[in-house]
Amino acid sequence: MATEEEFEIESMHFERLLLAVDDDDDESSRRAFNYASTLAKIYNIPLGIVSVLETGDLNIYQSLSPELLSQRRSEIAAHLNTYVEKAEAFGALNVQPIIGEGKPARVIVEEVVPEFKPDLIILGSHGRHGRTHIGTVAGEITRTAEASVIIVR
Amino acid sequence: MATEEEFEIESMHFERLLLAVDDDDDESSRRAFNYASTLAKIYNIPLGIVSVLETGDLNIYQSLSPELLSQRRSEIAAHLNTYVEKAEAFGALNVQPIIGEGKPARVIVEEVVPEFKPDLIILGSHGRHGRTHIGTVAGEITRTAEASVIIVR
Repeated sequence: MATEEEFEIESMHFERLLLAVDDDDDESSRRAFNYASTLAKIYNIPLGIVSVLETGDLNIYQSLSPELLSQRRSEIAAHLNTYVEKAEAFGALNVQPIIGEGKPARVIVEEVVPEFKPDLIILGSHGRHGRTHIGTVAGEITRTAEASVIIVR
Repeated sequence: MATEEEFEIESMHFERLLLAVDDDDDESSRRAFNYASTLAKIYNIPLGIVSVLETGDLNIYQSLSPELLSQRRSEIAAHLNTYVEKAEAFGALNVQPIIGEGKPARVIVEEVVPEFKPDLIILGSHGRHGRTHIGTVAGEITRTAEASVIIVR
C-alpha cells in the first residue's frame, strides 16, 4: 500500500468530451449519448460526437464504388447531425460532429483524439456477446487512448 | 447507421460508486480518487472504496504466515480508513470501506460488485508500460463487470 498519505482531495471535472457513436445503436449507445449530453449541459463544456466510416478492410474499401462511398458519407453526416441537434435541443451549447474514415479505433485514437483533445472519451459497451462484454473498438480505445475513458452500460 | 431517430435525450447520473484502490498509488489513482470523491459529494451518493488483499497465487498465499496475513489485512484496513476519512472530510457523506481477498479482478467482479451493486466503477489507469496502457486488473474489470466503468488517466 502507499505510505504517502499526506495528500489533499481536489475537485475534479472533465472539460472536453468525445462521444463515439457507430452502427450498433443499442441501449448502451443511447445511455452513452444521454450521459455525454448531460455532462456537456451541466458543466457547459464542449462535446465532440465522432462516427467513423469503416474502411479498415482494404478489399471492402476498394470494392465500394465512389457512389456508395459518397452515399455512406452522407448517411453518417445526417446521422451525426441528428445527434448534434438533439444534444443542442437538450441544452448542450457546444456540440461538434466529427467524421472519420478508416479503422474506427485507430482513427479515433490516432487522429480524432490528438486533434480534438478530449479529456474524457464516452463509449457504449456494445455488448455483442451479452451484457458483460465490451466491443473490440471500445476495448482498443480503452487500452490505448491518452484520455480517461468511460464505458457506459 | 440506426434509422430509429425518434428518441429523447434523458438526463443521466450515476447513483452508486465503487472506487478500486491498490498498491499502485500513482497519479492516475489519485485522480480516480479525486473524481470519485467529487461525484459522491456533488450528487450525494454512496461511495464504496475497495482494496483487495492479493492471494491469487495459491503458493504465495500458503507461504504467508498467519501473522503476515493478519498484518497485511491490518495495513489494508488502515489504508482504506485513510481514504474514507479523506473523502468524508472532503464532503462525501456516505463512504464505505470494502476489503476483499483473492484475485483482485475476480473478487471485484464476482463478489464486491454483486454485493455493493455500483452503477459506476472508478479505476485508475495504472500505466505500467507508459501512460497509454491500462493494467490487467482494470482491463478485466472493464471487460466483465456489469456496471459502467471509468478508467481515469
